[in-house]
Parts: sequence; structure tokens; C-alpha cells
Amino acid sequence: ETAPDSLLRPGIDDPNRQASQQQPPPYSSLACPNPPAPRPRSMRGRFEKMIRGIQKQVCAAIEEVDGNTFRQDAWTRPGGGGGITRVMQEGNVWEKAGVAVSVVYGTMPAEAYRVAVGKDIPFAKDDRVPFFAAGISSVMHPWNPHCPTMHFNYRYFETEDWKGIPGQWWFGGGTDITPNYIVEEDMRHFHGVYKAVCDRHDPTWYDKMKGDCDDYFMIAHRGETRGLGGIIYEDLNDRDKEEIFAFATDAANHIVEAYVPIVKKHKTDPYSPRQKEWQQIRRGRYTEFNLVYDRGTIFGLKTGGRIESILMSLPLTASWRYDYQVDPQGPEQKFLDAVRNPKEQQWV
Amino acid sequence: ETAPDSLLRPGIDDPNRQASQQQPPPYSSLACPNPPAPRPRSMRGRFEKMIRGIQKQVCAAIEEVDGNTFRQDAWTRPGGGGGITRVMQEGNVWEKAGVAVSVVYGTMPAEAYRVAVGKDIPFAKDDRVPFFAAGISSVMHPWNPHCPTMHFNYRYFETEDWKGIPGQWWFGGGTDITPNYIVEEDMRHFHGVYKAVCDRHDPTWYDKMKGDCDDYFMIAHRGETRGLGGIIYEDLNDRDKEEIFAFATDAANHIVEAYVPIVKKHKTDPYSPRQKEWQQIRRGRYTEFNLVYDRGTIFGLKTGGRIESILMSLPLTASWRYDYQVDPQGPEQKFLDAVRNPKEQQWV
Repeated sequence: ETAPDSLLRPGIDDPNRQASQQQPPPYSSLACPNPPAPRPRSMRGRFEKMIRGIQKQVCAAIEEVDGNTFRQDAWTRPGGGGGITRVMQEGNVWEKAGVAVSVVYGTMPAEAYRVAVGKDIPFAKDDRVPFFAAGISSVMHPWNPHCPTMHFNYRYFETEDWKGIPGQWWFGGGTDITPNYIVEEDMRHFHGVYKAVCDRHDPTWYDKMKGDCDDYFMIAHRGETRGLGGIIYEDLNDRDKEEIFAFATDAANHIVEAYVPIVKKHKTDPYSPRQKEWQQIRRGRYTEFNLVYDRGTIFGLKTGGRIESILMSLPLTASWRYDYQVDPQGPEQKFLDAVRNPKEQQWV
Repeated sequence: ETAPDSLLRPGIDDPNRQASQQQPPPYSSLACPNPPAPRPRSMRGRFEKMIRGIQKQVCAAIEEVDGNTFRQDAWTRPGGGGGITRVMQEGNVWEKAGVAVSVVYGTMPAEAYRVAVGKDIPFAKDDRVPFFAAGISSVMHPWNPHCPTMHFNYRYFETEDWKGIPGQWWFGGGTDITPNYIVEEDMRHFHGVYKAVCDRHDPTWYDKMKGDCDDYFMIAHRGETRGLGGIIYEDLNDRDKEEIFAFATDAANHIVEAYVPIVKKHKTDPYSPRQKEWQQIRRGRYTEFNLVYDRGTIFGLKTGGRIESILMSLPLTASWRYDYQVDPQGPEQKFLDAVRNPKEQQWV
């Protein structure tokens, strides 16, 4: 299937058209025979362009390592918007890798809006507020138990002016890693890349976003995190929109650098049946987190999102063994100690 | 580990002690040199005895077919009560079979009690109401894709007299079956056994409980049920306690008859890799239902229940394939048509 150039609404938030409508071209055609294409000015259009670019960049990097290609499904949402889902299943290195972009608009209940804004706005029972949401999300599950699973998500949310209140906006996102064994050098690399990204934008961010990531990915009933963390930020709108967009773009542009070298290093590591079994147990934990706690997954499932795109995050295979025991002196126990005490793991 | 004779509180709800305290022995030791053991009179004690007996009966029937034995874990709950969990993993016929009994007592928030009772009872913010709960639950997952998974659950819940309101009580339970393919004869057998059980107690029950079962096991985001149904009843207290207890006992005593012949019939059926793959996809759906919708599972996970007993219900292995397609003319599609239209399947 061929993906459309843009998932935005023509004439409403299409970046190129908006740009040409709202401002004169920066150069006259006489002075510059090849004028640059008009730049999208709306954050809607710029965010879509950014995540579409990230989807291409990440898929190309994964395809290069794997030797297989992603299939692509473009879909539309009856309520407004659509998406482009790319999945590679049963590749050489990854058993399942997916990168999904979606751009959705519609109206949300005024009550949900009031809660999100945190202001006591008067509204009628059936009032609905126009919104726009664009995001990219991805999970990659490799075959080899020595190669980590990786997840990322970058999104932008906006409401329109409503009842005299100016439109609201928020950014959210993050990248996190889920190995089955601890390789400290790899974790220093992954967290190091994201600490450097954060430090370029706000020196307080890495510590905060690393801690929030540990909190978010907690499988409460197990008392352990899903993996070994990364960064997460939610509902970020405490500074200039351009600054946050620049940070989100920088973070998304470092997914490949943070993750791919670790997979390249371990993709041919030998492993035992016991290590494969442990990977499958951890895949079970991954599934537990996503289906019981992950707000994005649950929200998507309960509000009629596209199921195949939402559950693309689940592993190809997972296992649940009753009362699974690990060698108390072995590397599996060391991993459990780490995920049960995530805040004590300071990788960088 | 050795299981205690009773999980009840000695001197409070221990059935034998209550009986001897509350009534004279039915025979003098002179007239009858071997008097029958005193019968437990409290529903607490009688319900525990019933489910302990069912646990033994079901495990023995499964062991006979499988050739392997269940391991047993007895555990206690810090807040009060405990349980006996029996699991057989990687047997000859079943990949995972578990039967868990639990008896739990403690106090619940008065607000939850008020909602359950449905009366406007005045209470103070921190009021708590003493409760007692006993139940048996079980899931059996066979290896062979032509053998169905089966689940059952039978439970009794009681509150004590509180603020002048007499103690309340409810029964709940049911048995349901989850094949991967439709074998009409098998479904007529399984549903037929439960229709006969229901009809002995109330001729309206089978239709109602079959319909409620279809509603309960709906995987809403897929628009399909987990399996091919059975019976379910929740919060049942609309008639004499003895009548409901007799029904619950009858239903629990027909688990083996309803299920085991179907497994015996199919346990050596040949199957293809494609049929095994389809079974794994259905196991993924089973996992989705249990982790996203099953009230018992979610309540247990979020209130600090024993994780290994709660998640014993998950399959040994499950699979999620992106955009899995079945042959529109094949038996997998016929199965999907059935689980997407559960009310149209009238087996008996």
C-alpha cells in the first residue's frame, strides 16, 4: 500500500498549504530560480514531518542490520486521521519489529479536557473539544536473548481554542530498553546517548526522565520494572514549544545510535536453551506490563484504536511458567535484582 | 508441602468445632460405637469442604489421563487466610494445568460494601466491614490444538453483621471451554452436561447463564469471545442459600464429566504446524482477555494476591503475529465466525 504524503487535513493543517497561505514566499521566483519549498509552519505539520522522517530513518537502519524489509500498511480512521504502520516479522535478527505513525483528530469530551487542563471550566454535559494528536511508537523484539528489546514513543497533542480558552498543547515521549541480561557497557552506552541528548536541552532532564521512566515501567504486581529504563516525559508544556520540539526531535534522532550498535554487537552471540527460556519469561513480563499497565495500550484498546497497530508491541512469543526459579548465583538473578531496584541503577 | 486440614480460623469458622459446639452429637457413643463425624454447619466450613473435595476430584481425573502428578503449594496470607495451589506443568497431555483453592478473610472498605449491598448505609470514612471469601479456580491448557482449554471458578462470599445490618452473602462461579476448532459433537456434550445441571435446579438458568458467559468472556477490542462459552453466575443470592449451594456443588461435581472425555477423545489427534500456530494465536487472545478484562485476575493483581496462583491461568506459551490471516474457507475462519457471534451458537 502506498502511504499518503501527509495524514493532515488538506487546507486545515496541511503544512505546505498553510505555509503558502499564511506568508509570502521568502524569495521571488525572479531572484531565485529554484526557491526552497515552503516550510511548514504549524506544529501539527512539522511534528508529522519529523515523525515520518524518524519512521524512515529507523526502519532503514533496522533493515540494514536485518537484511529483511518492513511491510507497510496505511490506514484511515473513520473519526478522522489515519496512520502508517510498518512491521517486519520473522526477520533474520528481529522476530518482530514495528514502527507506527498515527495522526488523529476529532473531538474529546469536555470533562476529559477540563481534567487535562486542570482548570474549572464551565461546560455543558455533551460539550466536546476539538483535538489533534500525532505520534510515532515502536517496539523491536530480537530473536537472540542477548539482544535487547527496545521501545520508543514520541507524540504531540493539541486542542483548539474553545470557550475563549486558547488551544492547549502537550508533548510526550521517550525511549527505553529491555534486555534479558545486564551488560553494563551496553547500558552505559544506551543511557549515555540519552543523557547527552537531555544535557543539550536541560541539565536536570536526564535524572528526572530516567527516574520517571523507572516509575512508569513498573510492573506493580511483580515489584519489578519491565526493563532497564531510559527516559520518559509526559504532558510536557512548561517552556517554549520550540524548545520542547527541538528536544523531541533530538531524542528521536538518537534512537538508532542508542540501540542499533548493541544489537549489532550481540546478534550472533551463542545462547543456550535455558537462556532462550529466560527470554521467553521476560517476554511474558513485557506482555503483562503492556496489557495491565501501559496507559497508551489500554487507552487504545478501550477507545477503538487500530488493534493491529496497538498490539504490534507484543512479542511474537511469550511464556508463563508457574513459580519460575532462577539460579541465585546466576545472571538472571542479577537481572532481577536490577529490575527490583531500578533507582539504584545509575548507568551514567 | 503439606496442606492443612482446613484454612478456616480455628474456633471461629472451623466446621467441625462449630458443629460440636453448637449441637449435641446425633448419637450417643453407647448406642452407636462408630458415630459419624460431626457435620460442619456453617456455609463457610461446608463451602471449603466442597471446594477442597473438588480440587482432589479434578486433579485425580487429570492425573489419570495425563500420567503426571500435580505439585502442591500451601500458602498463607498475612492479612488472614491462605490457599492450596496445585499445578502440573509440561505433562504428557497438558502443558499447564492448575487448580487453586483459597480461603481469605479480613475487612473491606465500607464504601465497597455499601455499593455491593446497594443500600444507602451511613458509615464513617475509615469504617471497614469484616468479610470472608472462599473459592476454587482452575485453568487447563493441553498441548494438542485439538484439545480444548477449560476454566472453572466456584466461590462464596460473606460479610458479618455490621451496623445492625445482617451479614450478606453471594455465590459466584461457572465453567467454560475454549477450543481452537469447533467440534459440534464436543460442544453439544459440554453444554449438554451443564444444561442438565442447570435444569435440575432452575429451568431458566442455562439460557441465562450461557448468555451471561458469552457476555463476560468478550474480548471487547477484538469483538470476539475467548472461547465457546459455558455457564457463569455472579452475585447470586436471590433464593435460599441451601438451594444455591446445592447448585454450585452440582455444577462443580460435573466439571470432570463435561471436560475430560473431550480431551481423551482428541489427545492423540495428529496436527500440523499451522494448527499449532493457530493454537498459539488463540492462547494470545486468552492472555489478552485475562490481563485486560478478567475482573478476578485484575482484582487479584491490584490487591496484592498471590501472583503465582493468579497467573497460573496464563498459558505456558502464547503468540502474537501482526495482522494474522486465516483461510476464509478453513476451520479457523469458522471458529472466528462463532466467537464473533456467540449468541447465535445454541449447542443444546
